[in-house]
Amino acid sequence: MLKILVINAGSSSLKYQLFDTDTHDVLAKGICERIGIDGKVKHSVPGHDTYVEEVEMKNHGDATRIVIRLLTEGDTAVLSSLSEIDAIGHRVLHGGSEFTQSVIVDDRVIEAIRKCIPLGPLHNPANLTGILACSEVMKGIPQVAVFDTAFHQTMPEKAYLYALPYKYYEKHGVRRYGFHGTSHRYVSQKAAEFVGRPIEELKIIVCHLGNGSSISAVKYGKCIDTSMGLTPLEGVPMGTRSGSIDPAILEYVMNAEGISISEMTEILNKQSGVLGISGVSSDFRDLDEAKKQGNRLAAVALDCFSYAVKKYIGAYAAAMGGLDVLVFTAGIGENNPDVRRDVTEGLEFLGVRVDLDKNYSKHNDISAEGATVRTLVIPTNEELAIAMDTRDLVEKLVKH
Amino acid sequence: MLKILVINAGSSSLKYQLFDTDTHDVLAKGICERIGIDGKVKHSVPGHDTYVEEVEMKNHGDATRIVIRLLTEGDTAVLSSLSEIDAIGHRVLHGGSEFTQSVIVDDRVIEAIRKCIPLGPLHNPANLTGILACSEVMKGIPQVAVFDTAFHQTMPEKAYLYALPYKYYEKHGVRRYGFHGTSHRYVSQKAAEFVGRPIEELKIIVCHLGNGSSISAVKYGKCIDTSMGLTPLEGVPMGTRSGSIDPAILEYVMNAEGISISEMTEILNKQSGVLGISGVSSDFRDLDEAKKQGNRLAAVALDCFSYAVKKYIGAYAAAMGGLDVLVFTAGIGENNPDVRRDVTEGLEFLGVRVDLDKNYSKHNDISAEGATVRTLVIPTNEELAIAMDTRDLVEKLVKH
Repeated sequence: MLKILVINAGSSSLKYQLFDTDTHDVLAKGICERIGIDGKVKHSVPGHDTYVEEVEMKNHGDATRIVIRLLTEGDTAVLSSLSEIDAIGHRVLHGGSEFTQSVIVDDRVIEAIRKCIPLGPLHNPANLTGILACSEVMKGIPQVAVFDTAFHQTMPEKAYLYALPYKYYEKHGVRRYGFHGTSHRYVSQKAAEFVGRPIEELKIIVCHLGNGSSISAVKYGKCIDTSMGLTPLEGVPMGTRSGSIDPAILEYVMNAEGISISEMTEILNKQSGVLGISGVSSDFRDLDEAKKQGNRLAAVALDCFSYAVKKYIGAYAAAMGGLDVLVFTAGIGENNPDVRRDVTEGLEFLGVRVDLDKNYSKHNDISAEGATVRTLVIPTNEELAIAMDTRDLVEKLVKH
Repeated sequence: MLKILVINAGSSSLKYQLFDTDTHDVLAKGICERIGIDGKVKHSVPGHDTYVEEVEMKNHGDATRIVIRLLTEGDTAVLSSLSEIDAIGHRVLHGGSEFTQSVIVDDRVIEAIRKCIPLGPLHNPANLTGILACSEVMKGIPQVAVFDTAFHQTMPEKAYLYALPYKYYEKHGVRRYGFHGTSHRYVSQKAAEFVGRPIEELKIIVCHLGNGSSISAVKYGKCIDTSMGLTPLEGVPMGTRSGSIDPAILEYVMNAEGISISEMTEILNKQSGVLGISGVSSDFRDLDEAKKQGNRLAAVALDCFSYAVKKYIGAYAAAMGGLDVLVFTAGIGENNPDVRRDVTEGLEFLGVRVDLDKNYSKHNDISAEGATVRTLVIPTNEELAIAMDTRDLVEKLVKH
């Protein structure tokens, strides 16, 4: 049995979960917030009240020290000492074309993550800070980097190349990378287990629908296409992100509104999506409520979202030459049966048929009897997937 | 029997065709080039050699006068006088949300076309110039405007709205309009006639694949979605246009290359697409040749194109809840059997099955025996469609 600490470091936050890799239990988890501003930590242990402390954290090193204290000292402790942590797994946003799978962190890996900063300018520096903080504070404990992009590295050229001057790909790495890879991989594996068939025989579409949403086509266990691109802006409309639009819109709106390209990209990332259409909220629960109250644009925003997801399902079925399993996951995919109903309506020609009773009553398998495509709802667990990758790599390390 | 002159005015050119609307025969056709520069006209009458003349044309008025002279005087004549022309039909690129069908030109229509100039900054002013030149030179002959966008105006909100701040739609008309509408309408009608069923019963996908390419979903006779957007840049990769890309790419490349938004949009329109990937050509015949010679990137560019078209077919089948007829048209769609083969390969799950012998031997119906979806190759004829619209409207005008 190994104990693995999973870390997801943001620019001013650090989320953590401590896993028992045999039972898959979370022994403790929490979040350090407002790092570099003032500092607040929430720490919870199953069966106990959440512990909250306001404590100054100048940087991610301070935050890491506090996590260790909470895990090993006083009432909040679940470990007798730091040495009980067998390894640390880090979520890293962008691995560029360098990383096709998770890796043990060494100097070369740190350098490669640094090289990918232009591709993930908000996340990669933060992820790196988390890794460096752990190197300093938990010296000697092996660390693993798990990339959001790695699972998608099996895409063929025709799926990852944009129709742009080729030098942009060669010089600047402009291509489709895709994100949520850890989730797409985890969920597609779980789906294969659920239907009891080898993933090597299955054509699976995973709809990871959350605040950020991405769809992927997993053919015989390998990702062959995904909706997010160079950045997580492409694809279906999201909470605040536009998804795909006519690229000529940028200049048109910039001229009409008198704004710069950086303001434009910011608006596409933060003020668009279902929030942009509805003017109500980026949260689908708020939109559902507003729609019930008769808000027309909230209803339109929900329609646009489900319609876009539906079209990706058709597109990826075409890309794979058919479909065996359709999976919904993440916040909206797991918890919004209206979206699942709207997305799957009219897909009978693909073999998709959803049992509405099951859809509305928390089943994992929501397929109607006799449907040739299995439609599943499978909770994602990126942290667990990171922990298991970390365990696998560390066990190999020990064996060699 | 009516004689209709069809005009497609560009910024420095004016193409024309004179139709007999009973026989659908082209009585004469030609092009005035280099208007406002120096001037050259090519005029051809079926059964005769093409007549070429270098003649100064200061503006579209001059060009129109020359067209009339060629049609009515000397060896090139096919009419005894101008009064034999019953009506003039104009191709107009952008009708915004104003025009859902073709209309008789009056002051209100001219004003509305002018209002759409920001949406079609290159084409609409030229189209308008053509209309105004005819008003002046062929006073009293009724004119009809046929819009490239009109057929797509039946799209539902979920298909035409982008997930952007809603005010961009309200204030600036930012939405999907779609183009090649005259072709999509003409070809979908021809397809229904070909299969001998009412268009009101059919789910049709039209792949208009040419130097510019667009796909549309025509459900029960109405367009419900199309791949081009606010401008003709969106959708599949084209000769020199990128098609859809991650909208965050613009800022990324602009920063990396030190270029402005207008340079970027220009590159996306003129140096991207299959030319951008391959570095070889925007012409598919050149790419086919280069591929045969072993040029890897030419092959990749062709792959990217066919793959993108294939995904739109899947997406639109999902949007319509199935598919009855798949149609290929325009330069590439009509003349490139390799593209048709690559696009349709693996779509058996949709009911699409192509007979490769038929595909390679100029059949209109290239479906394999027993295929549930009819796959057709139907030549488009936008000029004829414009002539017939013009006839219909002018006949109504006479009756009232």
